[in-house]
Amino acid sequence: MNSVFVIGVGLIGGSFALDIKGIYPNCKIFGIDTNKSHLQEAKEVGIIDAEASLQDLKSADLVVIAIPVDATLNVLPEVLDNISEETIVFDAGSTKEDICLQVKNHPRRRNYLAAHPIAGTEFSGPKAAIKGLYKNKTNIICEVEDTAFKLQERALKLFSDLGMRIRYMNPKAHDKHIAYVSHLSHISSFMLGKTVIEKEKNERDIFDMAGSGFESTVRLAKSSPAMWTPIFQQNKTNVIETLDEYISNLKHFKKLMENEDFEAVFKEMEDANHIKHILNGIK
Amino acid sequence: MNSVFVIGVGLIGGSFALDIKGIYPNCKIFGIDTNKSHLQEAKEVGIIDAEASLQDLKSADLVVIAIPVDATLNVLPEVLDNISEETIVFDAGSTKEDICLQVKNHPRRRNYLAAHPIAGTEFSGPKAAIKGLYKNKTNIICEVEDTAFKLQERALKLFSDLGMRIRYMNPKAHDKHIAYVSHLSHISSFMLGKTVIEKEKNERDIFDMAGSGFESTVRLAKSSPAMWTPIFQQNKTNVIETLDEYISNLKHFKKLMENEDFEAVFKEMEDANHIKHILNGIK
Repeated sequence: MNSVFVIGVGLIGGSFALDIKGIYPNCKIFGIDTNKSHLQEAKEVGIIDAEASLQDLKSADLVVIAIPVDATLNVLPEVLDNISEETIVFDAGSTKEDICLQVKNHPRRRNYLAAHPIAGTEFSGPKAAIKGLYKNKTNIICEVEDTAFKLQERALKLFSDLGMRIRYMNPKAHDKHIAYVSHLSHISSFMLGKTVIEKEKNERDIFDMAGSGFESTVRLAKSSPAMWTPIFQQNKTNVIETLDEYISNLKHFKKLMENEDFEAVFKEMEDANHIKHILNGIK
Repeated sequence: MNSVFVIGVGLIGGSFALDIKGIYPNCKIFGIDTNKSHLQEAKEVGIIDAEASLQDLKSADLVVIAIPVDATLNVLPEVLDNISEETIVFDAGSTKEDICLQVKNHPRRRNYLAAHPIAGTEFSGPKAAIKGLYKNKTNIICEVEDTAFKLQERALKLFSDLGMRIRYMNPKAHDKHIAYVSHLSHISSFMLGKTVIEKEKNERDIFDMAGSGFESTVRLAKSSPAMWTPIFQQNKTNVIETLDEYISNLKHFKKLMENEDFEAVFKEMEDANHIKHILNGIK
């Protein structure tokens, strides 16, 4: 790996750049970003060696696309237009169906690997990038059979060096399940933040009462709207389905409380406790 | 402080016991608990020196009550019946109005300090007790003026030695605001856990897709139903109000998605981002 291009030098792209540099110390890392101050910051903190543009991609061994998923729909075909036969491109988007469809018939489709590394924090931008972000994290790969074998191999070798575990899924299944285990969590957290802020706007010191439990459930409400809006847009149908079920479960819980059926309230929580065993499986 | 009684030797009571022993190494700590195996465990892990019963409270300098809030309603009057004039009693319950009402006219009311230390984890039982749990945490004290001055002083000295910051509130305001910054978070998390478990019950490996974001929002769904059911029962009116607002915010978000008004979706999240500044204030 001599020449790596990172499109989007924020948390996700920047963290890839840092670890790739660690694994291949002699490779040169180029950054592409519409945000000029992010490029400047990325150079300052040592994420990239130099700025570049899409026209420079001919020389790339690897292109990492880590930008909002609406931008990916536009940029990915253009990237494929500009690379060489030997370049492997992967993205890191939280939706996969629309992105895979977008390049389904592109002559360079076999140079693209559809990926979703399940990693991140609630922060964004180059300064949020961290070394080791991907260690022990899951990377979901879609339509692997549509990527050229030797190029798959190069990407998979990198993911293995980063310490990631790989799961293969089709894009439809990815988008459906990720709505439950990621997209819904973000909405539940954003709306929890909204509910409390609205109520307590005139009583700022009330937040002195908030403990680590509140902090944990509301953490994702710090996430970037620019990143999440297009995710919800592309995964609209699945996300609305999860929201319907979540709202219906909340209404049922409220109904049980109104009916003073606290045995059933207990049972609801006891059933949800089952998440303990499931989460133990994650780590 | 020579003689301390801890009623309920779980996470909260046990953590008090550990730190009190650290501050007053010569004091003797007695445990009272209806769960005999918890008492046994508490002795084994060094949380308490000996078992005791409510009839032994005459000699107590301090009694800490850390049991579910429904049990507190029964036990607190009995504790006050059994203590001496020199004993200070505080509880750690997550509701304050019903508990304060319960002992409003008790002849020993001035020996009681209504407290709510905002601290804990999603775990429970003596083995979940940890040293330093209360350091830099908020302790909400209600109706402080109803506690005898010299006894207030003894409790406040302890809280100060534990590193806690004190906030004074009336019980009604406590119960109203804590519904937003604590009780609602728990329900949002329990129901998130339920929604995902129901959907994914036949596809356990889907949880491989879950990342730290899901883990953070669903963490509180591991909490004890035995502790939380009576909290929701005692704070029913306030909790239902917060649930109404939360559900209405979620429905509005869903409506915006259905209408494909993604500018408004962006705005919703941007507004909720404000929680960043508020949470920075907490730490």
